[in-house]
Parts: sequence; structure tokens; C-alpha cells
Amino acid sequence: MDLELALRMCEAALKQAAREGAVISVAVVDAGGHLVSFQRMEGAGFAGASLAPGKACAAAAHRRPTAELAPTAASGPGEYLSWHDRFVCVGGGIPLWADYGETERVAGGVGVSGGTAEQDVACAEAASSVWRTR
Amino acid sequence: MDLELALRMCEAALKQAAREGAVISVAVVDAGGHLVSFQRMEGAGFAGASLAPGKACAAAAHRRPTAELAPTAASGPGEYLSWHDRFVCVGGGIPLWADYGETERVAGGVGVSGGTAEQDVACAEAASSVWRTR
Amino acid sequence: MDLELALRMCEAALKQAAREGAVISVAVVDAGGHLVSFQRMEGAGFAGASLAPGKACAAAAHRRPTAELAPTAASGPGEYLSWHDRFVCVGGGIPLWADYGETERVAGGVGVSGGTAEQDVACAEAASSVWRTR
Amino acid sequence: MDLELALRMCEAALKQAAREGAVISVAVVDAGGHLVSFQRMEGAGFAGASLAPGKACAAAAHRRPTAELAPTAASGPGEYLSWHDRFVCVGGGIPLWADYGETERVAGGVGVSGGTAEQDVACAEAASSVWRTR
Repeated sequence: MDLELALRMCEAALKQAAREGAVISVAVVDAGGHLVSFQRMEGAGFAGASLAPGKACAAAAHRRPTAELAPTAASGPGEYLSWHDRFVCVGGGIPLWADYGETERVAGGVGVSGGTAEQDVACAEAASSVWRTR
Repeated sequence: MDLELALRMCEAALKQAAREGAVISVAVVDAGGHLVSFQRMEGAGFAGASLAPGKACAAAAHRRPTAELAPTAASGPGEYLSWHDRFVCVGGGIPLWADYGETERVAGGVGVSGGTAEQDVACAEAASSVWRTR
Repeated sequence: MDLELALRMCEAALKQAAREGAVISVAVVDAGGHLVSFQRMEGAGFAGASLAPGKACAAAAHRRPTAELAPTAASGPGEYLSWHDRFVCVGGGIPLWADYGETERVAGGVGVSGGTAEQDVACAEAASSVWRTR
Repeated sequence: MDLELALRMCEAALKQAAREGAVISVAVVDAGGHLVSFQRMEGAGFAGASLAPGKACAAAAHRRPTAELAPTAASGPGEYLSWHDRFVCVGGGIPLWADYGETERVAGGVGVSGGTAEQDVACAEAASSVWRTR
């Protein structure tokens, strides 16, 4: 996960947020869940400084979008969702994959927080599309 | 909680994981919730390094299997539980009891993370059966 | 603390790092010590993901450069400082001041980690000079 | 960092502790600083459950033995030593290197806590010699 690429991913998330009318924080982490780049928009609450890295880390750790980790409305209440400060399991975190086939592995994650769940996901997907077309 | 027994508990959990086809982390904690033994299988995500000890700690702290601590739609949101990194309240943590009757007390806990909820519970039960037959 | 300015501060720190031959992480936090921008150079250890924000936060919280907070043999052990992950009291953190005179206040902090103490301070000063000439 | 090797490293540290008459905890972490194996001897204080992983993580993160990270007696008081819960900079942590030359990298770390500084270092070195001769 190099910084130049992480910065382009953040930029793509912020552009998507502008299109969505959302005010967000965005984080990119490496394969170990450690922060590489973080940006918080003017007006975005300081919770994003924890939640965006936490979503990115959860996606990298669990190798799935955090939206899939969030239990459905039917299976439990919202308090279940975010069970650990470093592993925030609500929508907006996406793992970043490298290689293919047998050597396929998670190279990091992106996490977005601040908008609605749908906006966070859309912004994280904008960032991850930069990764996929790197 | 002695180390030799904790290691045998970890071994039992790993054997059960092999039977289940699961890739897990397993933690054994003492009565204070502090780690005695931890093992993470090759290929198990790094989240297990937090989540397995967190389940073991939660089970020891709350004196109940963490599967019972996970809130359900029927039982309410469970605000009373500690949603925090040392107390992970999803299935896979089991308290370890010592003595009987009036002196009965929790001597520790075991926690497993990495598989499905059912697999985690099965592996934790394999470990706790080593404890019960010590 | 707006993001555009925080990004220019990070850029200045990275340029100084290149001049110094150092491989760093840089963090900018707001008045509450919460991350606004973070960048970790390729090859910089993952400790920087905690230490750079921790220095920035400590500088904002204590309103002094962290180099002054690091206890010296002459000044005593400094038990009054918070030795905790959000307050890293070694050189490389600098508070960012706003206004003058009676309304003077700390608007945030910058923290750099990864080089020698001298390199970290030089990079943080490069960032804070962007702030002062904003 | 595979579990079987990590277990052999822990075993070597415990054997060295027995020779030293020390009562220790030992931790092995991967390249991201995340726990792979941990063992705490009967009678070792629960602080070891934090300190041994913290030393292993610090050694992996800073790519140096933690004994070298600890400031000398001349340069500052002891409070300086342990400035962060995940990065414990007192002797007893050793990085584990992989590959040689240009691709040389840190593959993990081992940390020992519970004895004197010299005993902790001796136990960690016993573990790391298992790594080097793997």
C-alpha cells in the first residue's frame, strides 16, 4: 500500500462525498490494519477519526465489506454492530485485494464514515475502484 | 489457571477447528480476564488476536457464555454489556468454573474467533471440556 | 483546522523528510486532538500510525512542543504527563496556535514520527511553518 | 509467522526462564504486530499479558531490540521508557528478520516480560535463536 495511491483513493472518496452532499472522513490502512492515509473534511465530526480507520481495519481483518459484517435488522439490535474500537462493523469499510488465485490476499482496507450508510459505502467504493484500476 | 492446562485447552480447540474446517484463534484467560495462553492458526485473520481474548474475558467477567450475552431482538439491546475491546460479546466465549456449591467461582475463560459463530462455539466447548475433565 | 491546510502541512513535512533522508509518518489534529489528516510514507514502520497522531495530540493537549514534555534528568520524572497512547511525549509534536493576545488558543497540533528526534522535529516545524504563514 | 514455529519459540523462552529461575510471559507477533502465540507461566503477574506482547510489537514496529529503544539511565527517567501500551520500549523485545539483502524485512517479533531486564532479554534471545535456525 503506497502513500501516493492511498492519497488518490482518499481524493476519490472525497469527490464522491461532494457528489453525495455528504461530509465524511476517509481512511486507508495496510494489510496489518495500520493507517496509511486519513482525511477528514471540514465539518465532519471527530468520531470519524475513530470510525473510518475502524471500518477500514475491520474490512482488512475480516476480508469482507463491513456492510456484510453488520447483522441484519432481523438478527439483532444496533449495539451489536460496533463491538470493538478497532473493528467497526457497520457499512463503509471495504477490503482491498491483491493478486489472484492461490496467492490472492488482502493488501489493506478503506473505510468511510460521516454520511448515511449508503453514502459511506458509495464513497468507499469510489476509493476502492481507484485501487482496482491501479 | 496453569499454563500446561491452558495449552491442552488450546490444543483441543485447534483439533476441533481442524474437524470443523475452520481457521481460528483461541485464547485462555485467568479469573481476572488476563491472557494465559493464545494461539492463532496460520491463515487466521489478525482480528482474532483481539477478538478471541475479548470473548474469553467477557465470558469470565460476565460468568456466562458470550453467545448468551449477544443481544437478540427478543431480549433488547443489551446496553448493560460493555461494548469495548476487552469484552467481546458474540458467541465463542465460555467461562471456566471451579469448585461447587457455595465456593463455586469463575477461574477463567476460553474464547475462540475465526470461524462461524457455531464453529467458534464448538471449538470453545472442546477446550472447556478439557477444563471440566482436568 | 481545515483539510486543505492540513494536507499542505503534511506535504511540507514529507518534503522536509525527503531533504533529511528520513522516512516518516505525519499527523495533523484539531483542537480536540482528533485526526484531520495523516500520511505514512512507503517504508515507514506501522508504529508511526500511532505515534505521529499521539505526538500531535499531546502537543495540542499540553500546548507545548512534545520535545519539551519529554522528561529530562534535570526536570524530574514528569509523572504529571499522561503516558498513554493518545499522548506521546517525545519530540516531534508541535502545537498550532491561533489568534493573538487574550483570545490566543491552540487550534490543533502536528506530529511526526519515524526519523531521529531531530528529523522528526524538523519535519514537524516545516509543517507548522505552513500553518503560521496561512 | 506460522503457529508451529511460534510455539517452539515460546517453548525455548520458557526453558531459558527455567534455567534463569525467572517466571515469565512470552509473546510472538507477526509483521503487523498482531499476536500469534502467547504463554504466561504459573505465577507470572498479569502485567505480562500486556507487556510481553507490547515488547514484541515494539520490536517489530521499530525493527530493533527494545533494549536499544530504552533510553539510557543518563538520558532520562524510567517513565520515559514505556510510552504507549502497544509499544513497550524496555528490554526483552527482539525483531525477527526474514530474507537477506534488498528484500530483508521484519517478519515479526518476540517479547518477554516478568524477569529482570537481563533475564527477559536472555529468554527472548533463546526464542529468536529458534527463529534464526528455522
